Amino acid sequence: MKQELEEYYSGKKVLITGGLGFLGSNLAHALVKLGAEVTIVDALLAPFGGNIFNVEGIKTELRVEIADIRDTEVIRRLVPGQDLMFNLAGQVSHVDSMTDPLRDYDINIRGNLNILEIARKENPHIKIVYAGTRGQYGKLAHLPADEKAPRFPVDIYGVNKDAVERFHLIYKSLYGLRTTSIRINNTYGPRHQMKHAKFGILNWFIRLAMDGQTIKVFGDGSQLRDYNYVDDVTDAFLTVGASEKANGEAFNLGSGYAVKFLDMVKRIIEVSASGRYEFVPWPKTRKEVEVGDYLADYSKIQKELGWKPKVELEEGLKLTVDFYRKHRTQYWN
Amino acid sequence: MKQELEEYYSGKKVLITGGLGFLGSNLAHALVKLGAEVTIVDALLAPFGGNIFNVEGIKTELRVEIADIRDTEVIRRLVPGQDLMFNLAGQVSHVDSMTDPLRDYDINIRGNLNILEIARKENPHIKIVYAGTRGQYGKLAHLPADEKAPRFPVDIYGVNKDAVERFHLIYKSLYGLRTTSIRINNTYGPRHQMKHAKFGILNWFIRLAMDGQTIKVFGDGSQLRDYNYVDDVTDAFLTVGASEKANGEAFNLGSGYAVKFLDMVKRIIEVSASGRYEFVPWPKTRKEVEVGDYLADYSKIQKELGWKPKVELEEGLKLTVDFYRKHRTQYWN
Repeated sequence: MKQELEEYYSGKKVLITGGLGFLGSNLAHALVKLGAEVTIVDALLAPFGGNIFNVEGIKTELRVEIADIRDTEVIRRLVPGQDLMFNLAGQVSHVDSMTDPLRDYDINIRGNLNILEIARKENPHIKIVYAGTRGQYGKLAHLPADEKAPRFPVDIYGVNKDAVERFHLIYKSLYGLRTTSIRINNTYGPRHQMKHAKFGILNWFIRLAMDGQTIKVFGDGSQLRDYNYVDDVTDAFLTVGASEKANGEAFNLGSGYAVKFLDMVKRIIEVSASGRYEFVPWPKTRKEVEVGDYLADYSKIQKELGWKPKVELEEGLKLTVDFYRKHRTQYWN
Repeated sequence: MKQELEEYYSGKKVLITGGLGFLGSNLAHALVKLGAEVTIVDALLAPFGGNIFNVEGIKTELRVEIADIRDTEVIRRLVPGQDLMFNLAGQVSHVDSMTDPLRDYDINIRGNLNILEIARKENPHIKIVYAGTRGQYGKLAHLPADEKAPRFPVDIYGVNKDAVERFHLIYKSLYGLRTTSIRINNTYGPRHQMKHAKFGILNWFIRLAMDGQTIKVFGDGSQLRDYNYVDDVTDAFLTVGASEKANGEAFNLGSGYAVKFLDMVKRIIEVSASGRYEFVPWPKTRKEVEVGDYLADYSKIQKELGWKPKVELEEGLKLTVDFYRKHRTQYWN
């Protein structure tokens, strides 16, 4: 697989929106290694996950444009000539989508329509991989959830992410744009922001444990979660980006097993060798957008494209803690 | 039922967004008759269906504000104090949603988020009935379609209408706003715009027939459609508005039977006693957003709220032609 990806990506021109964020920067590292010609566009909007340190080590090997996907002129300049776009930019907080829904729609809907309109007019041959989310499903009646599960998003964030996935797939059916959506799971690992708990709770807990602090477990922590290590997610994006079979499709990612929220917390404390936890009642704003148990059925991407996750939770946590021990100051302040 | 509605609506303060349009103005006529205190907000944006003549006969009995639902100050002034809102304003053309997707999102998504945010903050006890659409379903694998049918909108309009329905229902589950969505069918009747074919094709064909012109039938005209006369739709909105059971729900409307597109055309020509038709190939932009056969299962609203359609196609067509014969100049120019 590695070799196939190298052959495919070597010399390819790739644009990553949100490329200084968590997924985008990990993808950038992988793409630079594969010999791609990478351009990043990222607005570094607070409080999202963009961090210029995320491209440390590769920053001379790619082009970084600090700009917003809603900026028509910038997108019109960047999109032509690209072979692929990994479209990851966005507002990413469930809770913020409810406190400021107009901001969520403005970034996630307007920004993406801007990208798609420019792509279809100025570069209709570009391949686009969009980062969807398991939040598109909302509360599920049956687990594990495959891609045909009914989607009842419980917050504005989920509705808008789902609308934007539909835009991508409609631009395939109407205009032939080669688009794919990957509905990502809870993802953790290096290069995630570590400054607040608004998104990426697992990474936030790693910080608390490393700081010797107390992790608050809402309720009894019995809800089930499905976690992917970021390298596996990066691998899925690269696999989809290199496949024509993926066009017009949506794919789930998953780990294959559900982990109790409380067990995830315990393992973080073990791996960090510090920190503790306590049970607290659900805060209202979190309970409102809590979707209950989740476990993904990722058999579609496995069967059709051969992707499967490789990094178990324990190993992923170790790699993550190691990374932040080394680069703590870049993420803590 | 009539008496129950009178008891409920008499003296109620009701805001209708898009109230100078087709559905909105028919609803305004019905509400004024029921003794409600009606306020209309309508931006009269071209090329949508707003027409000041639509409130002829009741204009001294209601308040009309020419303003846009995206205008925060206007909405903040109008929403407090209202008992109900019929939320009908919007961009309504499938084809225009593809040629100018940013305009569709701006009106339909931003406008509605604006309304919902103001409602939850300034008048959380208001009851809101939203006009959804069968376009939320897109292409259907099984007919008739009930409310649980999978939704694959084929155009930006359908995606955005579905997103806005989800917003309404989320504001119910998270904030307790009493919201309902009615997924309306192809609706025809008096007070529809008659100036172009961009939406409301049945009404447009009535104009062509009345003008003695040739109606173009795309393909072989064999696709099935489900039509409701506007009074039945008005009745559904009034019924839902008066029901607490409807809160948080989405309801289909329908006629109970499918009509071949070609048969609809033939009946229009019969009832108008003029005009003719010819077969032409599908134009690309129409074919793209064509969803194939449609027939709604409306048993949910029938069982739960007692609504059913009363006006058969033939009768509805006669009433419509009569109306436009009387008021031709108000709609033709």
